[in-house]
Amino acid sequence: MERTLIGDLGKHISETVSISGWVDVRRDQGKMVFFDFRDRSGFVQGVVLPDSPAMEAAKGVRKEFVVRVEGVVNKRPEKNANANARNGDIELEVHSLEELAAADPLPFDMSLTGFNLDLATELDHRALVLRHPRIQAIFKVQAALIDAFREFMKSQDFFEFQAPTITPATAEGGAEVFRVDYFGKKAYLTQSPQLYKQVVMTAFERVFSVNRVFRAEPSATTRHLTEIVSLDAEMGFIGSWTDVRDMSEATVRHILEQLKARSSAELALLGAELPVMIEKTPTLSLTEAQEKIFAATGRDVRGGKDLNPEDERVLCEIVKKDTGSDFAYVYGYPTRQKPFYVFPNSEHPEFNEGMDLLCRGVEWLSGGRRINDYGQLMEHVRAWGMDPEKISMFLEAFRYGAPPEGGFALGAERMTMQILGLKNIREASMFPRDMHRIDTLLSAPVPDDATDAPEN
Amino acid sequence: MERTLIGDLGKHISETVSISGWVDVRRDQGKMVFFDFRDRSGFVQGVVLPDSPAMEAAKGVRKEFVVRVEGVVNKRPEKNANANARNGDIELEVHSLEELAAADPLPFDMSLTGFNLDLATELDHRALVLRHPRIQAIFKVQAALIDAFREFMKSQDFFEFQAPTITPATAEGGAEVFRVDYFGKKAYLTQSPQLYKQVVMTAFERVFSVNRVFRAEPSATTRHLTEIVSLDAEMGFIGSWTDVRDMSEATVRHILEQLKARSSAELALLGAELPVMIEKTPTLSLTEAQEKIFAATGRDVRGGKDLNPEDERVLCEIVKKDTGSDFAYVYGYPTRQKPFYVFPNSEHPEFNEGMDLLCRGVEWLSGGRRINDYGQLMEHVRAWGMDPEKISMFLEAFRYGAPPEGGFALGAERMTMQILGLKNIREASMFPRDMHRIDTLLSAPVPDDATDAPEN
Repeated sequence: MERTLIGDLGKHISETVSISGWVDVRRDQGKMVFFDFRDRSGFVQGVVLPDSPAMEAAKGVRKEFVVRVEGVVNKRPEKNANANARNGDIELEVHSLEELAAADPLPFDMSLTGFNLDLATELDHRALVLRHPRIQAIFKVQAALIDAFREFMKSQDFFEFQAPTITPATAEGGAEVFRVDYFGKKAYLTQSPQLYKQVVMTAFERVFSVNRVFRAEPSATTRHLTEIVSLDAEMGFIGSWTDVRDMSEATVRHILEQLKARSSAELALLGAELPVMIEKTPTLSLTEAQEKIFAATGRDVRGGKDLNPEDERVLCEIVKKDTGSDFAYVYGYPTRQKPFYVFPNSEHPEFNEGMDLLCRGVEWLSGGRRINDYGQLMEHVRAWGMDPEKISMFLEAFRYGAPPEGGFALGAERMTMQILGLKNIREASMFPRDMHRIDTLLSAPVPDDATDAPEN
Repeated sequence: MERTLIGDLGKHISETVSISGWVDVRRDQGKMVFFDFRDRSGFVQGVVLPDSPAMEAAKGVRKEFVVRVEGVVNKRPEKNANANARNGDIELEVHSLEELAAADPLPFDMSLTGFNLDLATELDHRALVLRHPRIQAIFKVQAALIDAFREFMKSQDFFEFQAPTITPATAEGGAEVFRVDYFGKKAYLTQSPQLYKQVVMTAFERVFSVNRVFRAEPSATTRHLTEIVSLDAEMGFIGSWTDVRDMSEATVRHILEQLKARSSAELALLGAELPVMIEKTPTLSLTEAQEKIFAATGRDVRGGKDLNPEDERVLCEIVKKDTGSDFAYVYGYPTRQKPFYVFPNSEHPEFNEGMDLLCRGVEWLSGGRRINDYGQLMEHVRAWGMDPEKISMFLEAFRYGAPPEGGFALGAERMTMQILGLKNIREASMFPRDMHRIDTLLSAPVPDDATDAPEN
C-alpha cells in the first residue's frame, strides 16, 4: 500500500491507510497500546485495540523506532478530541505494525514538555536533538528566512553568484582569519564576499549570494560563531546611499512578511514575536543617535567613533518608545574607522555613507554606499596603507568603469537568534562552530548565559 | 527622470527616456556618433545627431564608460532594422549624455566577435571578462541550474539545511583534504556534506543543501577544481535504491526543462545543446556495462572494480546509439571499493546499491542507498577500519532509529561545463581555485587542452 503522509490523514477518514514514521510516544495501558506517530508532515495518535493482530509488535517497539503502520483513520469521539493539536480530531486504529528500524533507549527526555538540556549537552547530541519539535522549529524558521531573502532578491532582478570560500589575501582588516594550508602556500577562509560582490556587480549590476564566511576571533561569547551564513547583496546605479537603505529595508520587510506567512506555527511553538517594522524605519546619523542617548540617559557618548552594544540597546529602546519601531538605521560613521571602500559623504568627508540596521538592540545588517570612482578608490587604498597588488582583481573591476553603487549583508544566525529570542547564537546554527567546538567538544564548555559573556 | 531599463525601451517608442549603463561600442563617424549601450537587461543602439547637445560628451567617452543618457526612442527605418538582435528595430536618439564613471582603455578586445583570450589571460582578468556576453551566459546558465535544483527539491518537500564547511575529522577516504589551523587545533575543509545530510535526514526525512566542498588532490587537469558547488539531496523511507535513482532522474529532468525554458538565449549564444533525457533513462549494472563495452570494442574490462573515463565515454556512446539517451545509470559497484555507508545488495552483498549517472561520457551524479540499520553500520565501520569516535555524531543519528534511505549529489561546475561543452572546468567557475591559482596565479599556467591532461 502507498504511504500516506500523516499530515494528510484528515482527508482519509474511514479509509485504510499506510503510514511510515517514528514512534514519538508509546503509552502501554496493558490491554491497549496508544501511540503518537511522527513523520515530516506531523503527528497522529494511534491505538492498538486488545484483539489487534498488531498487539505483539506494538509491545516490542519504543520511542524513536521507525515503523510502517497500517490501519483505519477514525474520527475521535468529541470528548477525546484535542482541538489544539493538528490531527487532534482523528486517530489511527492500528491493524499492523512493521518495525523498519530499532532505536536504543534515549539518553535523555525528548518529550515536548520534558526536554530541557543545558546547551553543551544539547550540542553534544545535536544529531538526536534535531528531532525535537522546538529544535526543528528553529531551523525551519531559518530555512524560510534564507529562502525569503533569495526570493526577494530574484524578484528585484538580482543575479545569484557563488562567492569563493578560499581566498588569496585578506583585504578586510579587523577580525582574525583562518589560514588554510594550500599545497604548501598561504590561503585564507573568506571573511566576507564583500570585494567579490562588488566585482560581480560591475558585470551584472545587481547581485546576491548566500554564502559561508569565517571569523577566527578567539572569542567564546554567546554572540560569536566562527562559521556563519552571510546573506549578501550589491547594486549598481544608485542615486544615493538611501537607495541602498531602502532596498535593504524592503528585503528585511519581505523576510518578516514571509516568516509570518510561512512560519507562524514554529513562531508560536517557540513563543516568538516578529519584530515590528513600521512603514518607514527611523534613520539617524551617528551624531543624532549619540545626542538621543545622551538626552535619554545622561551618558555622554557624543563624539564616539561607534555605538557599543549598550548604546545600541538604549538607542533601540528610545526609538521603540518614540515610534513603535523595533528597527533603526544608523549612518554616518567616521570615515577612517571603516574599510577603504566605504563612500565618504561629499559635504562632510570625515563621515561616511555606511549604515547599520539595528533591531531590538542588535545589529542585523551592515551596508552602505561604496566608492566607485577608480581614482578615489586608489587614494583610499594608499591612505589606508593597503597593498594594491593584493586586491588587484577588485581594482581592475573599478578601473574599467563602475557605476555608483552600494550593498548590504545580513547574518542568518544572528537574525534567527534575535527573531526567536534565543539566548545563545549556537542555538541558531545547526552545527555551530566556535573556538571550542566543531561538532565534538575541543576543550572548554560553551557559554550558556548571554548576560555575563564579554562583548567584543 | 526615472531610469528605464534598456530591455524595456520597446514599450516607450517616441517617448523621451533616461537610461543608465555602459558604453559597449562607440563608432565615431565624425558628424554623427553611434553607440551600443548596455545594461543588465540588454543592448540598444544610440545615435548622436550632428546638432545634438550631447555631441561634445559623446566624443569624450570610450568603451566601458558608465553613462546616463537621455533621448527619444525611435523606430529604426525598415532597412536599418536588425531582426536578429533584441532592440534591433529601435534606436535611441541621444539628447544628453552624462558620464557617471570613466574607464581606462581596455587591455584586450572585448567585442563579441573579437574576444578570444587564452584561458590563463582570461582568468587573470576575470573581473573585466565577466562583462562579456559569452562569459555572462555561462554563469546565467549556472545560476538557473542551481536555482532549478532548489526549486525541484522544495517542490518535493525536501528541507534545505546549511551544511558546515569546517569539519573535525575526515570520514571520507580517497581525495586529500585541506587542513585549517583552527586555534592551534586540527580542522579540515569539508569534502562532502554526506554524513551531515544523512544526519539531518534522520530528523527531517527529506533534505537538501547547496554547498561548497573542497578537494586537495594535487591535480591540475582540466576537470579538477579545489573548490566546487555541490548540490546534495537525501531522502528517507525509500523502498529500494531505485527510488533514489528515480528522484535523482526527476531532479535532472527538471533542471534540463528549466534551462530550456529560462536559458535558451544563453544556450544559443554558446552554441550549446541540452543533453537528451529519454522517458526512462537506461540503467545498467556495472557487470552489464562491462559486457557491453567488451562486446562493442573487444576491450575486456569485465570484472574491473569501476569504469575508467574511457569506459564511461564508450558506454555513453553505446547507450546513445541504442536508445537515443545521453544519460545512463550504472549501479552495483563492488562493495569494498565504496565508502562504508553504501548499502550492500541483500542477495549479492559483494555488490552495493550505489549508482552513478553518466552524461555524454562524464559522471554527473553519484548516489544510492545507504545503510540505515545501526548494527550493520557498525559492522561496516569496523570492517572498513574506521574510528567510530571520529564519526560519533553521525552514528548517534542511526543508533536512535533511522529509516531506509538514500541520496545523491551533483556538481554544479561539472554539469555547467558539460551542458555548455566547455573545454576546461575553470571556465565553469566564476572564481576558479586550483592548485596553481586562487584568483592570482600561484605558480604554473592552467592547462587549456582537455585531451592531453592526465586523468586521476
